[in-house]
Amino acid sequence: MSASGLFISFEGIDGSGKSTQVALLAEHLRAQGRDVIVTREPGGSDGAEEIRALVLQGDPDRWSAETELLLFTAARRDHLERLIRPALSAGKVVICDRFADSTRMYQGLSRGNLRNTVDTLHDLMIGVEPDVTVLIDMDPVEGLSRAKARQGIEERFEDFGADLQTAMRAGFLALATEFSARFRVIDGARDVDSVAKDIRTAIETELAKRA
Amino acid sequence: MSASGLFISFEGIDGSGKSTQVALLAEHLRAQGRDVIVTREPGGSDGAEEIRALVLQGDPDRWSAETELLLFTAARRDHLERLIRPALSAGKVVICDRFADSTRMYQGLSRGNLRNTVDTLHDLMIGVEPDVTVLIDMDPVEGLSRAKARQGIEERFEDFGADLQTAMRAGFLALATEFSARFRVIDGARDVDSVAKDIRTAIETELAKRA
Repeated sequence: MSASGLFISFEGIDGSGKSTQVALLAEHLRAQGRDVIVTREPGGSDGAEEIRALVLQGDPDRWSAETELLLFTAARRDHLERLIRPALSAGKVVICDRFADSTRMYQGLSRGNLRNTVDTLHDLMIGVEPDVTVLIDMDPVEGLSRAKARQGIEERFEDFGADLQTAMRAGFLALATEFSARFRVIDGARDVDSVAKDIRTAIETELAKRA
Repeated sequence: MSASGLFISFEGIDGSGKSTQVALLAEHLRAQGRDVIVTREPGGSDGAEEIRALVLQGDPDRWSAETELLLFTAARRDHLERLIRPALSAGKVVICDRFADSTRMYQGLSRGNLRNTVDTLHDLMIGVEPDVTVLIDMDPVEGLSRAKARQGIEERFEDFGADLQTAMRAGFLALATEFSARFRVIDGARDVDSVAKDIRTAIETELAKRA
């Protein structure tokens, strides 16, 4: 979508190392002298963070899937208007930890099969996709063992929602096929530096195209 | 929309006496032994009231027209799911002070001409209209003088946003033409009892049709 900047989103299941890789990519691009904005969804702007807090606080069942979808879309609209669009217009690189593909997955797949509603609402109120979406792909069992190692906790595989995570992984891979022009699927089941190197290469290729 | 109950909305410009007439109609129907729920928008359910507070607090320009529309639609969806639909299914009469026609007016007309967006979003996420919409129609100058008399304040006509109120009146009348099957236009520039009597007659006609 960007006239001058580059809009990059990161997607992937829990434990895939998104946050680490977002930070490493931002550091790399800044070292090259680029102006980089790191943000995340849900949230990312003052208004969107307030909406995020409203959605996530209290009983998980307090909002229906449809109401939650509307609230997250309101947050995304605010984030887009107040932070993402102005930054791209100023020629900056925007790296966003989760964007609309996460909604396609979580609200579209796991909460009542709302994918058509998600798509119609997105076209009506958002209408923007990232220039590049980095999908860090990983077996959920691997993601679980990493999360356990990081947090030092005991957790049974089933408690982790492994079936759901497996479905999510398949869902993200299906989105990568559906939107193959902007998705870059990166094998996340390797050491951090190898993953970071592949991501850098993918993004530098995009930046070179626009130079 | 209701299978067994009756869904009534009240619309009209500020100062038209909606709140008074809602209360009088509810009292009348309850005296007839009907189970009546009085509610209002924006708000009306716990979740919707929280969203209302988020929208209305702080700087009036903190949300764009589009974000505000999404938030109000989220509130309406919650209100519909948690209060209106269950009450109608239980055979109750629901009287709602403002519903989607107010959004068609305020977000559709006054805030950036979003009427098409309002309609598409409504069809996608709400899909319900009242059985009867009572429009209390009144010259805004009359509404102003009533509001001043009630509040005991001095206010210049321009401060009241008279041009906007005049446009709103015309807009509501246009909606009454567009949705003539469910709108009942009541002349509000009369004493409270005369207005209340016309509203009672209109609603009793509807209830008789469904008996």
